[in-house]
Amino acid sequence: MKISIVGAGSIGLLLGSFLAEAGIDVTFLVMRKEQASLIRKKGICRINADRTESVSTVHVTTDMKQLLKTDICIVAVKYTGVQRVLDQFKQAGVHTPILFIQNGIAHMDLVYTTDFPDIAFATVEHGALRIDDRTVSHNGIGRLTIAVGRGNAKHFELFSRAHSDAFPVHWHADAEHILMRKVFINCMINPLTAILKVKNGELITDPHCNKLFKALYVELADAFTGEQWLPSYENVADVCRNTARNQSSMLSDCLTGCPMEIETIVTAVIQKAETMDAELLLLSTLEAMLLAVDGKGGKL
Amino acid sequence: MKISIVGAGSIGLLLGSFLAEAGIDVTFLVMRKEQASLIRKKGICRINADRTESVSTVHVTTDMKQLLKTDICIVAVKYTGVQRVLDQFKQAGVHTPILFIQNGIAHMDLVYTTDFPDIAFATVEHGALRIDDRTVSHNGIGRLTIAVGRGNAKHFELFSRAHSDAFPVHWHADAEHILMRKVFINCMINPLTAILKVKNGELITDPHCNKLFKALYVELADAFTGEQWLPSYENVADVCRNTARNQSSMLSDCLTGCPMEIETIVTAVIQKAETMDAELLLLSTLEAMLLAVDGKGGKL
Repeated sequence: MKISIVGAGSIGLLLGSFLAEAGIDVTFLVMRKEQASLIRKKGICRINADRTESVSTVHVTTDMKQLLKTDICIVAVKYTGVQRVLDQFKQAGVHTPILFIQNGIAHMDLVYTTDFPDIAFATVEHGALRIDDRTVSHNGIGRLTIAVGRGNAKHFELFSRAHSDAFPVHWHADAEHILMRKVFINCMINPLTAILKVKNGELITDPHCNKLFKALYVELADAFTGEQWLPSYENVADVCRNTARNQSSMLSDCLTGCPMEIETIVTAVIQKAETMDAELLLLSTLEAMLLAVDGKGGKL
Repeated sequence: MKISIVGAGSIGLLLGSFLAEAGIDVTFLVMRKEQASLIRKKGICRINADRTESVSTVHVTTDMKQLLKTDICIVAVKYTGVQRVLDQFKQAGVHTPILFIQNGIAHMDLVYTTDFPDIAFATVEHGALRIDDRTVSHNGIGRLTIAVGRGNAKHFELFSRAHSDAFPVHWHADAEHILMRKVFINCMINPLTAILKVKNGELITDPHCNKLFKALYVELADAFTGEQWLPSYENVADVCRNTARNQSSMLSDCLTGCPMEIETIVTAVIQKAETMDAELLLLSTLEAMLLAVDGKGGKL
């Protein structure tokens, strides 16, 4: 079986590394020729928790047409790149099953408007930090949870082959469930940590941070009350405790001046709540604050 | 006439400098002996807009009893120091007229519970930056506005002697009016600039900052609708425009890790609104955020 992966960022490299180790033939599609030639020459590298390095040989191309030869495709670019990839797939005549791995929920509607027959979505709970164009550091073991959105589930079964203690693969029946649960937790942790410049654990241990954190939970839980995917307060607090010393992705982006994923994590949830006639005042305030600081890197 | 000034911070030094230049006999009461001996030896220094230095000779003491010999006293310590000064006045038997110059409104109730017969309050709109123990930089000309709270207004008239183009002295009939107007503007500018790490002008020019700034105005103006002292949106926006390149005091404190004046500027206004049955949700969110970052200097 052949799998292609569009995008060789932290998540693309991490998945490619574990899939290749499971004996699956992996082809990366990347945009930059330097990255292609580096990966072609040296393979991809995963730094494990024990600081050992796992290097895998993979194919790599910058030509979308090469994806026609693979059985399944993983789209592992950020949300802002999804529309471009979908357009290129259409142009190149790609119609393989596709697994989408993006943060947030904004890509879901986008993907459902296409006519690709077999679509699945996944959430990733691994800690993964991109070190360079071919190297990812595996900073925490989490789950890859996959849910088939439409089409034939059988096409996606090969991911189970890569299941291991270091790379657990789980399945869920409802794609919206896993994406909403993940984005809910992201909404709880990312904006507050980015605005207050605190690590995840402080949302629980600092009384002033925790007051805001609890107020945000009440607002969100109230808006989405009764939803199957709604995590309890303790579920979300446990995520903060388990990642206490981590910087959230939005905080990291905020400090380095990289664009934060405001639209797909925060704006999409506000809009989702609006369709249910709920107004998220606190989250909207956080959204406005994030937009005000986005890309500045904390500089005056 | 003899005036004593308790506290030789930026505002104390600025006022002392202009009063001494007007021929008034000025005595500073300070806590640290090093500051006392430095001021005694070298006088106090004001750096003017044209970079010239104005040095004045003043008296200085660390002994509260010396204030018994002065005709009027200015309390120019931060709000958090007012209670201590009042206790010391009582112990030393000081009962001169007192002018209070603090940010916010929290000191007003505190002062009215005492039995000092002659009390006045002032707001300062000058830009003043403390350079060292004896030097203040006069960064912007504003007004000293004085309102007598109770007692005999005649006692305070000597301040008019210091009136000049560089140091305009104005009078107002209502102390609460001038303090509330000032604290309203502080509430509009300080918390947002500190949380978003922006200069005053960006509250108007950056569309995302301005959205929050306008929402805050609507919330505050709604709570205090009908009050004589309520500034218009354009009044507040003009303050931001006129001080566009300045860092607000809260932003400066936030960046350096100094305690911000949250209680007297923000909490006091929230409590004032509560007495009028108005809930300030956005300002309360900002208060919680300020408390969460207070004293950290933006460090993780």
